[in-house]
Amino acid sequence: MTRIELYDTTLRDGMQGEGMSLSAEEKLRVAHRLDELGIDLIEAGFPSSNPKELELFDLLSRERFGHAAVAAFGMTRRRDVTAAEDPALRVLAECFAPVCTLVGKTWALHLEKVVKVDREENLRMISESIAFLVGDGKRVVYDAEHFFDGFHDDREYALQCLRVAAEAGAESVVCCDTNGGTLPDRVAAAMADVVATLGPTGVRVGIHCHNDAGCGVANSLAAVQAGASHVQGTMNGYGERCGNANLVTVIPNLQLKLGYDCLTGAQLGSLTGAALWFDELLNFTPNPDKPYVGRNAFAHKGGMHVAGVAADPSTFEHIDPEVVGNRREVLISELSGKGTVHARARDAGIELDDGNAARVIERVKEREHRGYHYEAADGSFELLLRKETGEYEPLFRLESWRAIVEKRADGRVETEATIKIWVDGERYVRTAEGNGPVNALDRALRDALGEIYPHLRDIDLVNFKVRILNETKGTGAVTRVLLDASDGDAVWGSIGVSENIIEASWEALVDSLEYGMQVGRREEKTAAVPRS
Amino acid sequence: MTRIELYDTTLRDGMQGEGMSLSAEEKLRVAHRLDELGIDLIEAGFPSSNPKELELFDLLSRERFGHAAVAAFGMTRRRDVTAAEDPALRVLAECFAPVCTLVGKTWALHLEKVVKVDREENLRMISESIAFLVGDGKRVVYDAEHFFDGFHDDREYALQCLRVAAEAGAESVVCCDTNGGTLPDRVAAAMADVVATLGPTGVRVGIHCHNDAGCGVANSLAAVQAGASHVQGTMNGYGERCGNANLVTVIPNLQLKLGYDCLTGAQLGSLTGAALWFDELLNFTPNPDKPYVGRNAFAHKGGMHVAGVAADPSTFEHIDPEVVGNRREVLISELSGKGTVHARARDAGIELDDGNAARVIERVKEREHRGYHYEAADGSFELLLRKETGEYEPLFRLESWRAIVEKRADGRVETEATIKIWVDGERYVRTAEGNGPVNALDRALRDALGEIYPHLRDIDLVNFKVRILNETKGTGAVTRVLLDASDGDAVWGSIGVSENIIEASWEALVDSLEYGMQVGRREEKTAAVPRS
Repeated sequence: MTRIELYDTTLRDGMQGEGMSLSAEEKLRVAHRLDELGIDLIEAGFPSSNPKELELFDLLSRERFGHAAVAAFGMTRRRDVTAAEDPALRVLAECFAPVCTLVGKTWALHLEKVVKVDREENLRMISESIAFLVGDGKRVVYDAEHFFDGFHDDREYALQCLRVAAEAGAESVVCCDTNGGTLPDRVAAAMADVVATLGPTGVRVGIHCHNDAGCGVANSLAAVQAGASHVQGTMNGYGERCGNANLVTVIPNLQLKLGYDCLTGAQLGSLTGAALWFDELLNFTPNPDKPYVGRNAFAHKGGMHVAGVAADPSTFEHIDPEVVGNRREVLISELSGKGTVHARARDAGIELDDGNAARVIERVKEREHRGYHYEAADGSFELLLRKETGEYEPLFRLESWRAIVEKRADGRVETEATIKIWVDGERYVRTAEGNGPVNALDRALRDALGEIYPHLRDIDLVNFKVRILNETKGTGAVTRVLLDASDGDAVWGSIGVSENIIEASWEALVDSLEYGMQVGRREEKTAAVPRS
Repeated sequence: MTRIELYDTTLRDGMQGEGMSLSAEEKLRVAHRLDELGIDLIEAGFPSSNPKELELFDLLSRERFGHAAVAAFGMTRRRDVTAAEDPALRVLAECFAPVCTLVGKTWALHLEKVVKVDREENLRMISESIAFLVGDGKRVVYDAEHFFDGFHDDREYALQCLRVAAEAGAESVVCCDTNGGTLPDRVAAAMADVVATLGPTGVRVGIHCHNDAGCGVANSLAAVQAGASHVQGTMNGYGERCGNANLVTVIPNLQLKLGYDCLTGAQLGSLTGAALWFDELLNFTPNPDKPYVGRNAFAHKGGMHVAGVAADPSTFEHIDPEVVGNRREVLISELSGKGTVHARARDAGIELDDGNAARVIERVKEREHRGYHYEAADGSFELLLRKETGEYEPLFRLESWRAIVEKRADGRVETEATIKIWVDGERYVRTAEGNGPVNALDRALRDALGEIYPHLRDIDLVNFKVRILNETKGTGAVTRVLLDASDGDAVWGSIGVSENIIEASWEALVDSLEYGMQVGRREEKTAAVPRS
């Protein structure tokens, strides 16, 4: 099994993506998480492009990593100085990082129109910059920018850029599809040529792809199959435009399907958790459709799939989800059969006889007809199961609520909600303000319940979606509200449907908190150590 | 240039995706939009799996499409009956659709463990089902389910399944990667074998991929490069688990990079608009990182990219964004869009000088930064133009409004809104009930204004969409409301943005009515006959 060197550039190229923002401390956490996952090289950025980067390298220099090496990033020397005189190269040489990654030009179009350097001088810039850092004891990775465009334009020159890099002592030369629009057939052909040409130098050949043609993953695979053994990418494909090659997809493809050696079994089994952790840290809603690690990646709908998977999972699953730390999801819909309902009940630890299952299916059908949709509302579905089996415990009894939104004569908008509820024979009346009616209701309700159920304070509403059904009825349409909530560990969905948007939101809100308390109770039962 | 037949299955396989929900009327709109885009075959579903599908086929049968043919979907006959006796095949035969797509088994694992049919009987099921429909005058597309798993398991049998389909008269045989985990190298090898084997029959060979390994697009391309000329997929890659092959990415790759013929230039230029339209209809937040059509797909950050693009766009762009109807986003440039603003002003009959146009662009940028989005809000955009040129006439001056939603102790929900406005120096105070706060505000406002502006009574709110921006902030997020209104002739969109959902709705509502009055005035000027 060929060992593939995994190079993560989330902290440098990934940070170019929209909405990517991390403090130096958070970047340090990223580095540790990448190290735990089994990444070999962690590109951390340029050690002095701004104070935050300097702080990061200062922090990194004092850390120990179990497996990974830190790479500092920079460019080949400027055209008018020697390598030793180039201030940026000196920063790299003085940096603690054992690995330096240098990017340089390969494509004549860029030499002419962007940097205005002639071809011979460019070769010297590559060669001298690498030799300088190697002479200083650094391991050097050379990133050949726009390699595939350059190769297509002038094969000889593109290969020569790589050859001088290898001869100057680079450990790896990496072919970059910087504009991201190259398709797999071209990547495969060019890489085969590169591997054949550079074979005698003994240099490691690498690949760095972007996703502008939707082929970032496939291009990385094609390169490895053509002989590359170093793969650059980012967690979850973060990066500018359409993102970088997604290592979270590339790794299981290489290891589980093509037989390359990337991670240990335990590391691979942590992949889903790692992918979610990164989204969480960056405050992105995880894409449920992500290959391998998405919530829907192994979701089954409809009776035939569920029956087939029961007979033999490989009938409908391309891999065993547990190998990447994911799990099978059986989605509930009006098309679902009894088997599906039973499977979900088992997951929730609810005993269900066939009569109950049939009633649940009837109830789901009837409610879906009215606009409910349980696929993304696992929390509400579990509450429905509990209601049918008599295992449901309401958090409170509602007397009434009222929400008032007022645009005042001075232009200010004020929102206030009052709830009146009963818990254990006691009446609670609470009023709260909010930046909208649902926010105000949420605050008033938690204000009352938080005293009784402290676990509710850990629950955050992380996602709020409103869908108007029968949209063609305008504001007289039925509203479906989906809420996602989380207590930091689990994430669950709830749903409310009503002609009145506030009533629909209230229903979803109550389900969300009631299910959250079920989760809390379950955790209390199973956890030896109380949650902080 | 080889012509590729484009087959869209958004309305069937795409509907298996999470959160996919469309009424029969909406599906009809989808079919027309696909037709306009230049899709050749539109798979609409199984004509009798439930009343909604029946209604859809009834609607479709009365429509005319400029280009596309409708395909009805079904399975090969049951094992215990003849094709003519199979009720589902009879439904297909009797359906108006000129094309029938049949799915059947190819993989022994499924024959043994799922359907429990022997191999010979499966071949007869394929052959007889196709022959029956062909005999009835149908064009038949045969979808070979799990083809690549079957081919890997038993090449001979998998090819035989295709061969009997071709011999029975299928127009196309389609190799499906149903579980979605096959990688491009295997797809390419298998498809080359299929094309060589089936060549003598003259049948068209097709491909149907899913994205479970992140290679749905690359697999489709590999199949075409191996000789397939029929590609199945969905808009935006909608579909269960990780989605189907995304036609919105596949099409420009085939046409712009590999030289196949898919769409006219004008159709290709409508691709970005179409992709957004589908997300809008389904109320999905468009993924800004989507290849070709995403908002970030051609976004440039940093001075070097901007200078490079100014010197020659191909330095940093893999294609010209306008070819797919997208546009370059240069995050620091103020110049983009003046032409668009002038064009829109001309359409609205507004005179605009360059200074005004620049101010409009500034205003749009500033407001888009706050969450406004004028693409679907032409009405609000025209009002913004009028405000900048001093041509804006408000319908009324607002003093205040108030909406109260109350869930009473008896379980009833009551909603009431009060508005206080001034028109021509006179104060109007009106209170109305509604089935939600926006509906009540709408009624109160029209109650006041309808006396003064009778044309407002002709205006219906036909569409009401709510999108939560920064969804991860839960109920504290910013809300964007889009309203579509119509006076029976024109349809226009308006927008409101606020932390408070009611305030955002109010803003959109007022824009909607104000723009509606502009339309009314314009019609009065141009219409010889008064509107009824």
